[in-house]
Amino acid sequence: MKLGDWTVRAVREVSYRVTEVVDLLAPGNDALAEAARCSPGSRRLVLVDENVLSLRGEEIRAYFTDRRVVPVVVGVPGGEATKTLRWVEKIGLAADSAGLDRRDPIVAVGGGVLTDVAGLAASLYRRGTPYVRVPTTLIGQVDAAVGAKTGINLHGGKNRLGSYHPADHTLLDRGFLATLPQRHVANGLAEIVKMAVIRDAVLFGLLDAEVEDLARIRLSGETGQRVMHRAITGMLAELEVNLWEHDLRRVVDFGHTISPAVEMAADPVLLHGEAVSIDMALSCVLAAGRGLLGHADTARVLTLLRRAGLPVWNPVCDLGFLWSAVEDSVRHRGGRQSIPLPSGIGTCVFVDDVTEDELRVCVSELHRLAGTEAGIPA
Amino acid sequence: MKLGDWTVRAVREVSYRVTEVVDLLAPGNDALAEAARCSPGSRRLVLVDENVLSLRGEEIRAYFTDRRVVPVVVGVPGGEATKTLRWVEKIGLAADSAGLDRRDPIVAVGGGVLTDVAGLAASLYRRGTPYVRVPTTLIGQVDAAVGAKTGINLHGGKNRLGSYHPADHTLLDRGFLATLPQRHVANGLAEIVKMAVIRDAVLFGLLDAEVEDLARIRLSGETGQRVMHRAITGMLAELEVNLWEHDLRRVVDFGHTISPAVEMAADPVLLHGEAVSIDMALSCVLAAGRGLLGHADTARVLTLLRRAGLPVWNPVCDLGFLWSAVEDSVRHRGGRQSIPLPSGIGTCVFVDDVTEDELRVCVSELHRLAGTEAGIPA
Repeated sequence: MKLGDWTVRAVREVSYRVTEVVDLLAPGNDALAEAARCSPGSRRLVLVDENVLSLRGEEIRAYFTDRRVVPVVVGVPGGEATKTLRWVEKIGLAADSAGLDRRDPIVAVGGGVLTDVAGLAASLYRRGTPYVRVPTTLIGQVDAAVGAKTGINLHGGKNRLGSYHPADHTLLDRGFLATLPQRHVANGLAEIVKMAVIRDAVLFGLLDAEVEDLARIRLSGETGQRVMHRAITGMLAELEVNLWEHDLRRVVDFGHTISPAVEMAADPVLLHGEAVSIDMALSCVLAAGRGLLGHADTARVLTLLRRAGLPVWNPVCDLGFLWSAVEDSVRHRGGRQSIPLPSGIGTCVFVDDVTEDELRVCVSELHRLAGTEAGIPA
Repeated sequence: MKLGDWTVRAVREVSYRVTEVVDLLAPGNDALAEAARCSPGSRRLVLVDENVLSLRGEEIRAYFTDRRVVPVVVGVPGGEATKTLRWVEKIGLAADSAGLDRRDPIVAVGGGVLTDVAGLAASLYRRGTPYVRVPTTLIGQVDAAVGAKTGINLHGGKNRLGSYHPADHTLLDRGFLATLPQRHVANGLAEIVKMAVIRDAVLFGLLDAEVEDLARIRLSGETGQRVMHRAITGMLAELEVNLWEHDLRRVVDFGHTISPAVEMAADPVLLHGEAVSIDMALSCVLAAGRGLLGHADTARVLTLLRRAGLPVWNPVCDLGFLWSAVEDSVRHRGGRQSIPLPSGIGTCVFVDDVTEDELRVCVSELHRLAGTEAGIPA
């Protein structure tokens, strides 16, 4: 009898929605109840960032109980230290004890850390449970919580374990930003600057014109909304054609080559966007060294980052550390550097041939610029 | 400015291969090297069941080193106790220390437990790393390691966390079965009986004719191969049209309604197929009670299970336990029972309306049959 040889082929269609809302927790606003498919008498597991819980906990509970839905609320601490398998396990056990069935969405209200770990838990619970995201930080609203990626860290490896599992519905309420600390506003601005530099010169112009004001009023107002729309539209357009990253050359990886290692190693702690900012600054210097980006544009990007309240340097940035960060990035990108570098503001190219020598020159150039540029201390 | 509302749509195409091979570890056999994309000078993480490692470890190492590939071999204990997040983490750390890049396949050699946990680790490592499966048990070769599901247990919940992540290539070498203990042969036969009862009367006939001989010679020989081919072909046909279980009414869930709870609770430990056997027996009694399956056919199935060396009863099977197992299954199946019951041998239907009273009657009928039927002790 002939040896067996079978091929299985299947196609999965995925779609998800991201919707801007106003006054999400107002009793008369049905958006969240509809997204979470709340029917009277049901229970919902609601994961809430501890800070949000202390500020808005009563509103959140009332929103559900007013609809005769029992919210099983679990407070989750913010910060990278929450991105662990232990928290995935805790969320799985909470889903068990809430008695969820496999089609009952989990609700996640919080920053990028919470939505990352909640998304991973949802993707694994019974091999895939729907969830709804309510990002409450700027970085969540423009980046972490509008994509498909979930993840936790593993012994210093940023997002070393994770999945692609977008929330069925993500609800963006800029009202949550009203109480966001300025440092977290800057954290989100980093990802907006990223989108501007690699694919949207108009967005860059909007930021360049008034980034200090935008940060101060936490992107409230018309220009803030316009900035966020452009950033989100660009992000989703990049993701939609490459949702599972079969193509490992991703323009949205700009600023994400050495930043995972910088973010995990920095002491005192750096926020994600702060590490991305340092990476973008270094990438611009690399691009300038290759003649891809003019020196004036390089200075504009670095200055914009600093005006936004972001660092462009960190003491961990010695050559040996950064080179091993590049090497880990190569492993993550399937054996090639695939480093996105801006080729003018609003476009980018990929390079695969950065050498340790080239990196040495650029690191020392960035160090010099960081200490002097625009009169703003690094 | 209008509130933003975006919809992201994407399509993922997945394909994977399952191939029968002979003498997989023979130095001249390139099948595994090709599946694992071994190029001279590369490293491969090779996860091997501890039993297989003690029997075939030297051959496995030599297979890789002969090709100038460094095998980073990690021994993994068999048994459900290995299906933990702790082991997912260990495999992630081993992948880190092996210095894998994201496109280097992980190789998993072992039973269903090993391939389940290795598959989950591979699906999460850098959000998805390819892997190659070499199932070394009968249940692995006909069931666990030819599908897409991965999983670990959580505080008594069977496969409570998991993913759909088929190996790129699964290589089946019946030679591994030569040293398989008889109890593990029966364990695999349970899943073959399942395929026979729900969709393949010809397969049922093959088993019914000579199951004792097939078990004794561990499915070596022509009939064994034919039995395995029919079981695998049927399994893959069912999976291909529903790989991510969007349809939660799955004929291959026959025997998998109360078995997850039975498997997790039984003491002494039951193997997966043993718990499935008990569930199939109970399902047949349910089907008989509804007039779906004739009493003669019901007896044939129960007798076949016992001839295969499988149990049809366990002391944990009291009504309260089994009813709560049905309720958990309902949560797993999105709010409906969707219990597959045979309607004659070779076909099946789904029922959603089993009551606790009906279950009581059937449990006591099964208990009676288990104590008397065919003169074989339960």
